[in-house]
Amino acid sequence: MAIPFSKQRLSPEDSALILIDHQSGIMQLVHDYPPAEFRNNVLALAKLGKAHDLPTVLTTSYDEGPNGPLIPELRAMYPDAPLIRRPGQISAWDNEDFVAAVRATGRKKLIMAGVTTDVCLAFPAMQAAEEGFTVYAVVDASGANDTATQQMAVQRMSAAGVIPVNWIVVAAELQRDWRLPSAPKTGEIFHQHLHNYGMLIDNFAAQQAARAQ
Amino acid sequence: MAIPFSKQRLSPEDSALILIDHQSGIMQLVHDYPPAEFRNNVLALAKLGKAHDLPTVLTTSYDEGPNGPLIPELRAMYPDAPLIRRPGQISAWDNEDFVAAVRATGRKKLIMAGVTTDVCLAFPAMQAAEEGFTVYAVVDASGANDTATQQMAVQRMSAAGVIPVNWIVVAAELQRDWRLPSAPKTGEIFHQHLHNYGMLIDNFAAQQAARAQ
Amino acid sequence: MAIPFSKQRLSPEDSALILIDHQSGIMQLVHDYPPAEFRNNVLALAKLGKAHDLPTVLTTSYDEGPNGPLIPELRAMYPDAPLIRRPGQISAWDNEDFVAAVRATGRKKLIMAGVTTDVCLAFPAMQAAEEGFTVYAVVDASGANDTATQQMAVQRMSAAGVIPVNWIVVAAELQRDWRLPSAPKTGEIFHQHLHNYGMLIDNFAAQQAARAQ
Amino acid sequence: MAIPFSKQRLSPEDSALILIDHQSGIMQLVHDYPPAEFRNNVLALAKLGKAHDLPTVLTTSYDEGPNGPLIPELRAMYPDAPLIRRPGQISAWDNEDFVAAVRATGRKKLIMAGVTTDVCLAFPAMQAAEEGFTVYAVVDASGANDTATQQMAVQRMSAAGVIPVNWIVVAAELQRDWRLPSAPKTGEIFHQHLHNYGMLIDNFAAQQAARAQ
Amino acid sequence: MAIPFSKQRLSPEDSALILIDHQSGIMQLVHDYPPAEFRNNVLALAKLGKAHDLPTVLTTSYDEGPNGPLIPELRAMYPDAPLIRRPGQISAWDNEDFVAAVRATGRKKLIMAGVTTDVCLAFPAMQAAEEGFTVYAVVDASGANDTATQQMAVQRMSAAGVIPVNWIVVAAELQRDWRLPSAPKTGEIFHQHLHNYGMLIDNFAAQQAARAQ
Amino acid sequence: MAIPFSKQRLSPEDSALILIDHQSGIMQLVHDYPPAEFRNNVLALAKLGKAHDLPTVLTTSYDEGPNGPLIPELRAMYPDAPLIRRPGQISAWDNEDFVAAVRATGRKKLIMAGVTTDVCLAFPAMQAAEEGFTVYAVVDASGANDTATQQMAVQRMSAAGVIPVNWIVVAAELQRDWRLPSAPKTGEIFHQHLHNYGMLIDNFAAQQAARAQ
Amino acid sequence: MAIPFSKQRLSPEDSALILIDHQSGIMQLVHDYPPAEFRNNVLALAKLGKAHDLPTVLTTSYDEGPNGPLIPELRAMYPDAPLIRRPGQISAWDNEDFVAAVRATGRKKLIMAGVTTDVCLAFPAMQAAEEGFTVYAVVDASGANDTATQQMAVQRMSAAGVIPVNWIVVAAELQRDWRLPSAPKTGEIFHQHLHNYGMLIDNFAAQQAARAQ
Amino acid sequence: MAIPFSKQRLSPEDSALILIDHQSGIMQLVHDYPPAEFRNNVLALAKLGKAHDLPTVLTTSYDEGPNGPLIPELRAMYPDAPLIRRPGQISAWDNEDFVAAVRATGRKKLIMAGVTTDVCLAFPAMQAAEEGFTVYAVVDASGANDTATQQMAVQRMSAAGVIPVNWIVVAAELQRDWRLPSAPKTGEIFHQHLHNYGMLIDNFAAQQAARAQ
Repeated sequence: MAIPFSKQRLSPEDSALILIDHQSGIMQLVHDYPPAEFRNNVLALAKLGKAHDLPTVLTTSYDEGPNGPLIPELRAMYPDAPLIRRPGQISAWDNEDFVAAVRATGRKKLIMAGVTTDVCLAFPAMQAAEEGFTVYAVVDASGANDTATQQMAVQRMSAAGVIPVNWIVVAAELQRDWRLPSAPKTGEIFHQHLHNYGMLIDNFAAQQAARAQ
Repeated sequence: MAIPFSKQRLSPEDSALILIDHQSGIMQLVHDYPPAEFRNNVLALAKLGKAHDLPTVLTTSYDEGPNGPLIPELRAMYPDAPLIRRPGQISAWDNEDFVAAVRATGRKKLIMAGVTTDVCLAFPAMQAAEEGFTVYAVVDASGANDTATQQMAVQRMSAAGVIPVNWIVVAAELQRDWRLPSAPKTGEIFHQHLHNYGMLIDNFAAQQAARAQ
Repeated sequence: MAIPFSKQRLSPEDSALILIDHQSGIMQLVHDYPPAEFRNNVLALAKLGKAHDLPTVLTTSYDEGPNGPLIPELRAMYPDAPLIRRPGQISAWDNEDFVAAVRATGRKKLIMAGVTTDVCLAFPAMQAAEEGFTVYAVVDASGANDTATQQMAVQRMSAAGVIPVNWIVVAAELQRDWRLPSAPKTGEIFHQHLHNYGMLIDNFAAQQAARAQ
Repeated sequence: MAIPFSKQRLSPEDSALILIDHQSGIMQLVHDYPPAEFRNNVLALAKLGKAHDLPTVLTTSYDEGPNGPLIPELRAMYPDAPLIRRPGQISAWDNEDFVAAVRATGRKKLIMAGVTTDVCLAFPAMQAAEEGFTVYAVVDASGANDTATQQMAVQRMSAAGVIPVNWIVVAAELQRDWRLPSAPKTGEIFHQHLHNYGMLIDNFAAQQAARAQ
Repeated sequence: MAIPFSKQRLSPEDSALILIDHQSGIMQLVHDYPPAEFRNNVLALAKLGKAHDLPTVLTTSYDEGPNGPLIPELRAMYPDAPLIRRPGQISAWDNEDFVAAVRATGRKKLIMAGVTTDVCLAFPAMQAAEEGFTVYAVVDASGANDTATQQMAVQRMSAAGVIPVNWIVVAAELQRDWRLPSAPKTGEIFHQHLHNYGMLIDNFAAQQAARAQ
Repeated sequence: MAIPFSKQRLSPEDSALILIDHQSGIMQLVHDYPPAEFRNNVLALAKLGKAHDLPTVLTTSYDEGPNGPLIPELRAMYPDAPLIRRPGQISAWDNEDFVAAVRATGRKKLIMAGVTTDVCLAFPAMQAAEEGFTVYAVVDASGANDTATQQMAVQRMSAAGVIPVNWIVVAAELQRDWRLPSAPKTGEIFHQHLHNYGMLIDNFAAQQAARAQ
Repeated sequence: MAIPFSKQRLSPEDSALILIDHQSGIMQLVHDYPPAEFRNNVLALAKLGKAHDLPTVLTTSYDEGPNGPLIPELRAMYPDAPLIRRPGQISAWDNEDFVAAVRATGRKKLIMAGVTTDVCLAFPAMQAAEEGFTVYAVVDASGANDTATQQMAVQRMSAAGVIPVNWIVVAAELQRDWRLPSAPKTGEIFHQHLHNYGMLIDNFAAQQAARAQ
Repeated sequence: MAIPFSKQRLSPEDSALILIDHQSGIMQLVHDYPPAEFRNNVLALAKLGKAHDLPTVLTTSYDEGPNGPLIPELRAMYPDAPLIRRPGQISAWDNEDFVAAVRATGRKKLIMAGVTTDVCLAFPAMQAAEEGFTVYAVVDASGANDTATQQMAVQRMSAAGVIPVNWIVVAAELQRDWRLPSAPKTGEIFHQHLHNYGMLIDNFAAQQAARAQ
């Protein structure tokens, strides 16, 4: 069932970013990552889409109610992206407007994250895979009630042909070669969100500056 | 081997709830979830069956002996459900009355939980899958001696075509759309058993009340 | 600095229950206990106060804002208890009305829980201890951002003469002897919230019933 | 690749027990289970073989050297079982005498445990599966250097058609029905090695005794 | 407050063993040690008392009810030790017969274990310390609902002058010198319950045997 | 030894912020917090100093060598703070210029963080406490090689009169009352670094906006 | 998809060792193994290649920049191995020189380790598997940002036909029989890097020496 | 009870190194650190003694029996140090020769490590402290049966005036200032045993080399 890696791997030209239910209410349910780490991962993934100009689709679930609005950081980054405000469907893929927006991106590879992992990510990820999309489920920019739930969702999605990854994999596949023009943007995202790498950059820069004197 | 999600997913019309050996003795063996969390999950799953009027089958193993009686909370919720009191079979599926009761529900999708996960859940779950049922094994409303045991049972059931999930997935698949009539009941279960969601509801309600003044 | 146990130990006649900032917003910050376990502990502690008719003081912090209202379960249990709605003070002990309400209970032993453990519980607990109260800080009915934070708060409170405990200790000190009249109420709380004990009771009752036949 | 459960499941008539390298030296390498728990599991598994009169094969690796002798508990339980003392082969299946001894049992279902899990268990387990045996790898009566190693070994064995389980699963499949004559022996093993179950038995027996008076 | 080690340390002549509420019901509540490890520790501690002929006091709490009888392993080891069956007092030290039995041992150093750690062990341990006994609380032969509870109980007992230890410390203090006559008995207990040490002994014995040939 | 809380507690008027060795090299040694969480905590603490205009002292250890430069985020926030670049002293308190800079703040309460916790934080923290300063050691904005190291450092500092806390405690003590003018700055820091609280704010703001319509 | 074990297993004659990006900068990103354990594993794997004279290929990614140079321990061990210094490709398999160097080894079984596991190891491992190589991914001599990332990478590689293992498995497959001439070298590596085994050897040697006297 | 830091802190002139029971048998009992990490820490501590020419005392317990010989790495490093081979005393401090050897060092500050932490380290550490020595117990170069045992031993030693630390603290106190002549030796130990720091050095050296070209 596994798609060969050569067919899986993302490029900015054939991928779209799909962010599902990153709402200020629902995100309170996330307990498989420490809060600061979870926020870090969500922002990093969103910035990657920006850095590579990926067509992006946003969706929320009953955002006028307890689930809360899309977090403002994402709205500010993607003011013009379609935002499908679902009136009731739990799986975004059950909403025709959402599916239409995804199809309208024209991309066949979907980078998906959603809260919660087992429901809001897993359901549409499996449905999209069933319809022929290559789906990367970004598990660490999604979130679940506990670790066992995350692991069962990973296993279930894998069995359905979805490819569970962490956001750094997405960064690496999209960048592919550090000589490509997006490198500074990727580097900046690493500086802010993969800080051990950022500190390598800082340390190196300091040496370069010393050398230049 | 994976069943496509579109074929897997539950609806209240095609699902039955099967609760195996939730007895006051056997449940003492559960050490992969903290006690309060385990009880929470079992009650939540049972209430979901109630909320959606699922045909339900209960079974116990030698409940006059050390295994103890079915916990009264479940009996009280399902006074009229068939309760198959197995005289000795470890796997409920080896008991003809149990299989007959399951078949009598007329449903082909089974939501199963059992204590312990590796034995009382895994054996009948794999047997039911082998006979053509779509089986959801609700791992967090089941329980095992330790985490490694849980993980091996999840892996073994998956390999046999069973779909291991947590109770929230069951809730989400049965509800499917928050506009359906079962929403208040699902909401109430979330309030009591997925308390972080319940608190979102409370917080929202308080705002609504303030707004109404 | 340690108070001898004979002086520490609680009795229903000399204790008051103080619940601080159990609000539907703030409680979302708790990540040192799984959500279902945390809710379980908070309700158990509140019911203990009820079972022993402890004078009880409730307080909230800016409950019309993001912190959210007192969770309705507590308000319903204590409709007549003083609820000090603090306008801004982070430590409840900085609020004169709160201190007055505590003093008005006439009790010198305080059973305190608060969210979060390191701030909303630890500050007033240390202040009360400094003023001569014997203070039990119920850590598992309080909650913190992570485990290290909980442990540092426990250590800090201990150094200040506060006695960090879990809710079961409170139950046991208040009950002291199972022949006292409060036993059925304590037993019922154990049945619901210390379920492994509850199952012992169920199992025993089933045996007794069988014996009686 | 998954064998249906109905084909997998063990019975005392078609199973053999294979214990690999449970030597007093090598067992010092086990760090994925606490020492007391590991010893408990090994003895429990060995007693199950005894209880069901399973043909048993023992093997050791260079037991005159640093690896140490077979632990005396196992030798005492199985004084007459073939003990293949391998002169050098790391995988027992590379030793012709061992394979002959396994074949001489006449059984096609092998219950295997070995120290270490990733090497001494996994290699012969995968080789036996490749030759058509149904192989249960008893992971908790085996042992590895760390948890990640255990998990990778479980995954690798599963991919090769081996069925990783814990010893309680073996007990349950061999017993199958508590009305079968082996029940008292299984119960005794549970009493000693699955002590939470043993305590249920004790508690029940006390009630029965009280009832009899 | 710390007692100097030279005053603390145990010897068989000045110590008594106090085992509190190791009953087949209550022991089901233990979740801070895996079940097999907990049983291992309790039996090891009991055997140490036997090996050194320590005066021993047993006590149970309402053992005709849900708490269950003293586990038979302990009763069998200490058929003649006083067993104080408390009718209702939660703290054994609140029972005069128990205190009298402890005093009757004539020892001023008490090796105490009890289930649960935070209540049945901590209360009498602190009371005994307050009355001038040197008290070793054997935490790993006691048991609690979770790890945080264990840690708070350890901290509370320490603050009250109790000395929390593990059973191996008790073994080492009682043995003190491997040339003393109790060495074979201590060695046998280590073989069965500190199995990594037992395997060192087996390995050494095998070498000795080889040498003797 | 414990200072009463009323004497401990910080206010912006009597506190200084001391940041030790947050260098792009040394920070690679931190393994007791996940990287993203550690960075989050360091930045939050630094912003708190800014929000309350605390006098701040920075120091680095051989920052032209492998230890690397002060991370640029801190330098940018505190361009005018004294930066003591130590030529070799491991404990900053062994450097006279550093001590002079600390004294020059005129404050007697020091909020200290340093990498690593056990050395660069613990040594000067204990020295400052010995000289009469009230010292808060901000453990989660410091970092150690592993958790056991962190815990031993916390215990050692506590024994020396230092008060180990997390950054949220610092925030709460400095803010003290949400009606004080620094509230919006504290709120903004919480929004970015205690994101579960930030989401409460967002959720509330959305409700307010809806109400206003 | 699984290759039978008989086809998988390594021998020194048909295997090559591929070490990817073990650079002094990138290795700072590893947080799924404690630092000392990670270093231990990397050196052990490298020594195994040496012990069995495996053709070895080294590669680095932009080693003049922040990623840092190949760690000197590896360069010193393999002064003559091809070192492909990639100018920008993230996946080594995207670099033609690297693939050529791998092919030039003439081996079809590749023992690969890389930092980080999810990117620098997983990408080329999956690409090599796709081109027909048998690939062992040595996960514990590679390293990732956290444990969940490691587990997802293991699962992804497995699905693509790669075989994730730990370094001890590599040692055991290469040695295969302790009577082969490489045994002393393997033994020496175990002594230094699988120290519990090394201590068995020391203990045995001491006995032998005593025996010889 | 706490000794002020200014009095505690080590210098090479006033310290001795005491290594207790690092024997190839007893070290098999260590389960609170992964094996490779434990070995790393023991060797690092021993090298520190060497680097600073500390007078060193070695001792073993019945090293001709199952406990095994002193590990050869330590003997090779300290061929001339007194090695007190205790015939039976469990606490080294009960052996007069050992105490005499310690006193003969003329030092009043003792850096002690021992296996196991709770017995072989804790007993003599507490005895030495009682006799007026300043004792640093190096917990991560010692080892225990499990983490709870380590933590109780740390707490007990602390209460007795011993100072539990990790080996890096010892390194930092002995070095004190990187401009002192021992710096290269300390640096080399860090390179081998605190590898994240070693890699900083490598990275820096590479930069320096590039700069020099």
